[in-house]
Amino acid sequence: MNAFSYRISGVQPSAIREILKFTSDPEVISFAAGNPAPEAFPVETIRRISDDILREEPISALQYSITEGYPKLRQWLKDDMTKKEMFNEQDDELIITSGAQQAIETCAKIFCNEGETIICEEPSFIGSLNAFRTYNAKLVGVEMDDDGMIPEKLEQALKANPRTAFIYVIPNFQNPTGKTTSLERRKMILDLAYKYNVLVLEDNPYGDLRFAGIDVPSIKSMDKKGHVIYAGTFSKILSPGLRVGYMIATKMMISKATVALQTSTVHTNIWAQMVAYRFVTEVDLEEHFQKLREIYKNKCSLMLNSLKFAMPRSIDFTEPEGGLFIWGTLPCGDMNAFCKAAVENKVAVVPGNAFSVDERKPSLSFRLNFSTPTDEQIEQGVEILAKVAKTMY
Amino acid sequence: MNAFSYRISGVQPSAIREILKFTSDPEVISFAAGNPAPEAFPVETIRRISDDILREEPISALQYSITEGYPKLRQWLKDDMTKKEMFNEQDDELIITSGAQQAIETCAKIFCNEGETIICEEPSFIGSLNAFRTYNAKLVGVEMDDDGMIPEKLEQALKANPRTAFIYVIPNFQNPTGKTTSLERRKMILDLAYKYNVLVLEDNPYGDLRFAGIDVPSIKSMDKKGHVIYAGTFSKILSPGLRVGYMIATKMMISKATVALQTSTVHTNIWAQMVAYRFVTEVDLEEHFQKLREIYKNKCSLMLNSLKFAMPRSIDFTEPEGGLFIWGTLPCGDMNAFCKAAVENKVAVVPGNAFSVDERKPSLSFRLNFSTPTDEQIEQGVEILAKVAKTMY
Repeated sequence: MNAFSYRISGVQPSAIREILKFTSDPEVISFAAGNPAPEAFPVETIRRISDDILREEPISALQYSITEGYPKLRQWLKDDMTKKEMFNEQDDELIITSGAQQAIETCAKIFCNEGETIICEEPSFIGSLNAFRTYNAKLVGVEMDDDGMIPEKLEQALKANPRTAFIYVIPNFQNPTGKTTSLERRKMILDLAYKYNVLVLEDNPYGDLRFAGIDVPSIKSMDKKGHVIYAGTFSKILSPGLRVGYMIATKMMISKATVALQTSTVHTNIWAQMVAYRFVTEVDLEEHFQKLREIYKNKCSLMLNSLKFAMPRSIDFTEPEGGLFIWGTLPCGDMNAFCKAAVENKVAVVPGNAFSVDERKPSLSFRLNFSTPTDEQIEQGVEILAKVAKTMY
Repeated sequence: MNAFSYRISGVQPSAIREILKFTSDPEVISFAAGNPAPEAFPVETIRRISDDILREEPISALQYSITEGYPKLRQWLKDDMTKKEMFNEQDDELIITSGAQQAIETCAKIFCNEGETIICEEPSFIGSLNAFRTYNAKLVGVEMDDDGMIPEKLEQALKANPRTAFIYVIPNFQNPTGKTTSLERRKMILDLAYKYNVLVLEDNPYGDLRFAGIDVPSIKSMDKKGHVIYAGTFSKILSPGLRVGYMIATKMMISKATVALQTSTVHTNIWAQMVAYRFVTEVDLEEHFQKLREIYKNKCSLMLNSLKFAMPRSIDFTEPEGGLFIWGTLPCGDMNAFCKAAVENKVAVVPGNAFSVDERKPSLSFRLNFSTPTDEQIEQGVEILAKVAKTMY
């Protein structure tokens, strides 16, 4: 009695959650979160849209709905994704999920038997790693350089793990590193997926938040054989509290995903889906994205410039072209001691090993978030971090 | 490639969904759904509350929130459940889920290894059965009489299946039968759970919709050993589109459930949780429940009286004291032929075998829903059903 399943027994609450406990102290400046900038939420528009919905079609917004998602939102997404060459009417289907996280967890559920392998970038997003762990997947991390996963290492991992369910990648402004996978590397990942007959799960929560450089075609858009599953979300462009994401894959895959979602959440909150639909059809989306990119660009620049100015030169920082995160790497020494000293001085960052497929593996890196803190907090926080760093480096 | 996991390979979309396809024909009167009565939705109150939230605390309603749920709603539920002797501050914890369905699916995930047994009422709610199937659980059905599961049969099932994860029961106005498990039977289920050292998952979506008879104490309220997990929901008393439910269990169990939910939906739509909280604290709940009970009582009586008046006497119908469903049973013959003839004559009911742990097992029963159709549809639909039945019985 009270024996938990093997699949859940070994999974610990995310290390980030533990860090976030410190941040409930109002004196702590948190660079540890992953929240979108609150000033980016189109509050007034959402309020107006919500009121319209609850006046014009309240029963539709409150009654049970279908698992596949609000038909109008699905159609808009299909049309939008068709324009981006990421949806093919003939072969593909699209389902709404309660955030991209649910799409990712569902992929583990429907594709990965216990003990089978999921290959990830090393480091990768802890929420996805933990989702995979709850299905007893064997996680294999592939080392990255500035262009993404190193193809030779990926091929080694595929050779060594013939029972691989899929390769999980976040090609744009990756969480936690902020790195973007180059076009050449995306092609190589897809070629290797074909060669070793495995799927690719492409997670793209930040794609619309590019504030520098030029867009790189998604892996999904290059796939002609139904090997790529794509996960998208409204969390970073509209509101994460709504919990509206989506998943594109072959029709057969989405039919299995539908069964899985029907038996877990039945459907995604329908009011939220209707809000998302009216939002994308009623506002000037390009203008909205432009505003978001401006906010994120300014915050990222402020943090990077502050870091460059104040921190010891021996500490390295990635320079993301979008997204929410900067990845810092110490030249040597004890990263955990650095993070501990930082939080004792009221600045929270996330230790890099939290994002590893093996959390016990030593790491010299840490994750900084620039979207949640205010400009003032960014400046103050970096100043404190620099003081801590200077006593150690 | 494209090989699905064993756990999802065998699970088919719910048979109800297939039936519901017929009901997209506007000429079909559907007794096949399981939707709450739309006239029971407090539309105006929800609209006012939603507007208040998006004016007064928009960022809280739109930003990421914590997996455990909106603290104010959790506290209100804990207080309410403490009054009902269903929450014990010292031992219990409560987590918000995206509908009770997610609580049920999460129990399978965290308690049931592949191949282990889940014991269910026979028949039982298809959404739960399918959730258990997606974890490769072995489903064992226990025959019911009018008072619920037959204790001897339950003990036989427990003896025959030493690797049982939990017993799943819907004690109030069960879906699909409308039956209520008696107090004595509830005690016996708990005693057997203690004796065989297994858990009980008590699913109570309809408890507040009692329109006849008197309340029976929940199994959770009788449990002194932390064996009972309780799943509740706002779907039937407020709105199912909101997708807000909850789960009560020991602190250790809820900590595992938190990990599972953190990696699936992260948290339940926060606007919906805030709406639910303001609703339960701002309206006269007893008055609201009274209004709902009146609606359900009238619809149930109308359907039962129409059935008694028009249908052949040899067809039996349960007389529920609450909830949404009536269970019909033919004296002999071919139930599927009856359901097929009904839908061809534009009335949809759900064949009873859909609710069996083994859908291939022959059944003489079918499920009728009285909450979704209008009064006129109830009268017309029963008339048509009776015509069909009279050609066969």
